[in-house]
Amino acid sequence: MTPPATASTPEDTRATPLRRLSLNQATVNPLSVPEAVDLCVRHEIEAIGLWREHVARAGLAAAAAAVRSAGLRVSSLCRGGFFTHADPAARQAAIADNKAAIAEAAALGAPALVLVCGGLVPGSRDIGLARRMIADAIGELVPVAQSHGVRLGVEALHPVFAADRCVITRLGEALDLAEAFPADAVGVVVDTYHVWWDAALPADIARAGNRIVSYQVCDWTLPLPADTLLGRGHVGDGHIDFPPVTAAVTAAGYTGDIEVEIFNQAIWSAPPDATAALVRDRFAQVF
Amino acid sequence: MTPPATASTPEDTRATPLRRLSLNQATVNPLSVPEAVDLCVRHEIEAIGLWREHVARAGLAAAAAAVRSAGLRVSSLCRGGFFTHADPAARQAAIADNKAAIAEAAALGAPALVLVCGGLVPGSRDIGLARRMIADAIGELVPVAQSHGVRLGVEALHPVFAADRCVITRLGEALDLAEAFPADAVGVVVDTYHVWWDAALPADIARAGNRIVSYQVCDWTLPLPADTLLGRGHVGDGHIDFPPVTAAVTAAGYTGDIEVEIFNQAIWSAPPDATAALVRDRFAQVF
Repeated sequence: MTPPATASTPEDTRATPLRRLSLNQATVNPLSVPEAVDLCVRHEIEAIGLWREHVARAGLAAAAAAVRSAGLRVSSLCRGGFFTHADPAARQAAIADNKAAIAEAAALGAPALVLVCGGLVPGSRDIGLARRMIADAIGELVPVAQSHGVRLGVEALHPVFAADRCVITRLGEALDLAEAFPADAVGVVVDTYHVWWDAALPADIARAGNRIVSYQVCDWTLPLPADTLLGRGHVGDGHIDFPPVTAAVTAAGYTGDIEVEIFNQAIWSAPPDATAALVRDRFAQVF
Repeated sequence: MTPPATASTPEDTRATPLRRLSLNQATVNPLSVPEAVDLCVRHEIEAIGLWREHVARAGLAAAAAAVRSAGLRVSSLCRGGFFTHADPAARQAAIADNKAAIAEAAALGAPALVLVCGGLVPGSRDIGLARRMIADAIGELVPVAQSHGVRLGVEALHPVFAADRCVITRLGEALDLAEAFPADAVGVVVDTYHVWWDAALPADIARAGNRIVSYQVCDWTLPLPADTLLGRGHVGDGHIDFPPVTAAVTAAGYTGDIEVEIFNQAIWSAPPDATAALVRDRFAQVF
């Protein structure tokens, strides 16, 4: 006797949406790569977003072996970028470092390297100059990305970070930049925290289509903490309306992992197993 | 003997650009209307931007008489808005309050009422709902604004305030909203602090043309303070490149006052005469 088509066990109901959940390592920042991998395995999370600092600490080969032997997908490597320097030697060093990051992403099996492109050039208020430097740097990286089979993901950051971290402030702007390069080399990252406020977001996501290389989620909570970088919340704890954004990203054709990436000191101080369990629960509720 | 055509006294050099300087009362927030008016007179500042709370404390007739007898222009009245409420009675109360604000602006001789339109509707994550409520409210205010000869200035606020203060986050979005109504009733406010980061800013200012009802300036300084509202700096102390923005506003046809509006506890604690002198100096240097 077969069950009715609409029936499913509670396990199945949980498992289906959860298969796209990726735990970005930043959400459990105190953990090493092997510890974060074990956490994912314990909580049946199939994918992980890695950070270069953690990978370096574990050793690239060891980190790659850890995720591979655990059977995890690496959804992205965070992060490259920071291209905006007054000193030409510093700009070249940034490009060299980004080339290394592309090779690391390839070694880890990550399809995308997330780029936080850089704020204003130190000592300058010329935001156009910063934007031109970023475009030039990405142009230098394109052949390297193509030869490694890794896509560069230009991430628009919230305008609160425009001066010091990223002058690319809207998905539409990230897309304008990406579209200057081949789609197999440069795409965009949609991160709800950074772009949720933008009235053009639905149209920009639709336009992004197959340029979307990563979909990252966390919530906008208030009040902001003293360190603005650490003001993110668990999905559902804040003001972002996730379902329409997810629907738009899906309609655009994105079928990859959905990374939960939360920078928050209180969450970093919580037991990682509790964090992973909550991430799973909220993900199942919202996505 | 006549001096060469290029010569001018230091007084003249200072006076010409300074004629467009308006001191927004928020910059010297501890002062009453009569005190702020006296400060402007002492520092040869010809215009002032007033705040409703201060006007109410002074009394509307007394405030109007104070600015008139001092010969000051009132460049704007801050502020109306906050239209986004779940409770219909609260929405109606907001509209009634905005009608009163329009009448106050007319009594003060202010050409524009600045609108901070409101954040997400309490208990809702539907940013589209908030935007529709704002459009509906402005629609109700249009005939009142026209009958009083006061223009409503939709101000795009920095996206850091999207959840709790204003879901209108870009000049282009403010303009899309304003353009749904007659130009004699609804325009936009260009405030450097809120929009400096936007790659579309030059194009949006050009498109705004005669919809610009107020040009407000202060600088983006880092780090942000715990209270994000109070993180603004004197012109020249931060990261904003003012000359291209001013050139665009001028090219768009705006010939009105330029309001220096700074929310900053340290500046509020400084002697007001020192603040006014510094505002003048920086204005002369940058504009």
